[in-house]
Amino acid sequence: MKKEELYSGKAKTIYKTDNPAELISEFRDSLTAFDGKKKSEAKNKGYFNAQISKKIFEMLEEEGIPTHYIKMVSDTEMLVKAVEIILIEVIPRNIAAGSITRKYPIEEGTVFENPVIVMDYKSDEHGDPMMNEDIAVAMGIATYEEIAQIREMALKINEILKNYLGEKGFLLPDFKLEFGRVDGKIVVADEISCDTCRFWDKTTGASMDKDIFRFDKGDLSKTYEEVAKRIVPEIFE
Amino acid sequence: MKKEELYSGKAKTIYKTDNPAELISEFRDSLTAFDGKKKSEAKNKGYFNAQISKKIFEMLEEEGIPTHYIKMVSDTEMLVKAVEIILIEVIPRNIAAGSITRKYPIEEGTVFENPVIVMDYKSDEHGDPMMNEDIAVAMGIATYEEIAQIREMALKINEILKNYLGEKGFLLPDFKLEFGRVDGKIVVADEISCDTCRFWDKTTGASMDKDIFRFDKGDLSKTYEEVAKRIVPEIFE
Ligand SMILES: Nc1ncnc2c1ncn2[C@@H]1O[C@H](COP(=O)(O)OP(=O)(O)O)[C@@H](O)[C@H]1O
Ligand SMILES: Nc1ncnc2c1ncn2[C@@H]1O[C@H](COP(=O)(O)OP(=O)(O)O)[C@@H](O)[C@H]1O
Ligand SMILES: [Mg+2]
Ligand SMILES: [Mg+2]
Repeated sequence: MKKEELYSGKAKTIYKTDNPAELISEFRDSLTAFDGKKKSEAKNKGYFNAQISKKIFEMLEEEGIPTHYIKMVSDTEMLVKAVEIILIEVIPRNIAAGSITRKYPIEEGTVFENPVIVMDYKSDEHGDPMMNEDIAVAMGIATYEEIAQIREMALKINEILKNYLGEKGFLLPDFKLEFGRVDGKIVVADEISCDTCRFWDKTTGASMDKDIFRFDKGDLSKTYEEVAKRIVPEIFE
Repeated sequence: MKKEELYSGKAKTIYKTDNPAELISEFRDSLTAFDGKKKSEAKNKGYFNAQISKKIFEMLEEEGIPTHYIKMVSDTEMLVKAVEIILIEVIPRNIAAGSITRKYPIEEGTVFENPVIVMDYKSDEHGDPMMNEDIAVAMGIATYEEIAQIREMALKINEILKNYLGEKGFLLPDFKLEFGRVDGKIVVADEISCDTCRFWDKTTGASMDKDIFRFDKGDLSKTYEEVAKRIVPEIFE
């Protein structure tokens, strides 16, 4: 049973439930980019992202990766384990795109031989600055052991997701993961969706993700629907 | 024998010699800060930094740390091994000061339980952005093995230098190291001086380093002279 709102973020609202160990994560239609400087809404965005996230969490669980996912309670609402979020945004990168091409002399489209893992401090207030394990430990965000485990999990998830999406006609240049602590272990939390991944069409190279919104590349709702058709075709039956 | 100029940087000029395996590094009196936005000169700065650097390189060599240092050829000129500079600025941090206190919610003066090692991409053009091992490897700057070795060397140098300076009445909040490849091994290159270290007086906490210039805290030449008196008293005899 959904109860009071716990937290309303840039794309989702988190609600308490009767069970303190469980929360409801509602995927909304609102969109933000560039540290919240650009804002909008897109019809059915929440629905498509919720369904894509659900499918990916289920797939990861089958592959032995623990996640916060329990079940869907409506089209846009996911029941999840309440976790203690680790304030690190973990970004596995396979192909150079976005900020990495602006910060360093790395050309967009460069394929990395080894996946690049970037860790940012999750703090809108500080502009999500890049960090490393020593800084994370110094700030009390995680232990060295946890960060080593998060890195291993991120690399494993990246391999699984790259293959899974490859079969569905996507390249996966990069994506963002959040992790949380629950019952003494680390699980994948938050979402894995068109808002948090770069999906490039394998054939055309076209963006099929939030870059549509960031760089005004087209109709976001239609694009997310195309992605949903490949990842969760069952919802269109 | 000093020959043509190879490179003139923000604080030193590098000359070729008759021997292609050796260079001369001349410490100049010029000063820059904030990515070259602030510029000045300070009398004898080059001399004091050269002498301090010499003494620290000699001490590190005695402690088993390989450096590029060969010998002094004048008061401000150091004969060094020509190395292939690895484009990473390695910053060991013991006490929070400077940029780390602006980027993250870490208060100046916070003592780190474990030293924090930060690696920046050495590129004035790109504003020395922070990097990590994966990015360095992706950019072809170094191998994973080299970066692991650089980290180990940086931690060891930090311990040695902290103790050495502690005995001379300094705290060592942080400092910058450069490494280079020569004869198949990695050695400490560049300089270790008042320009590249934060030295705080142990008793008063006063800055005795380039922060004097950055934040207009006093007379730079006099301050560097004070540091030289503690580290290289022999040059005042
Ligand atoms: N299982 C969970 N337990 C607790 N908090 C979570 C869980 N999964 C995600 N969160 C947090 O809930 C918020 C989700 O809303 P979102 O709109 O993505 O917020 P934000 O603007 O912080 O990115 C995020 O702060 C995220 O870290
Ligand atoms: N042993 C060495 N061999 C070759 N280059 C070196 C060596 N030691 C230092 N250097 C390089 O020489 C330059 C020293 O001059 P400096 O004024 O510090 O330059 P910068 O403005 O690049 O910091 C630096 O680019 C440094 O990386
Ligand atoms: Mg979010
Ligand atoms: Mg320099």
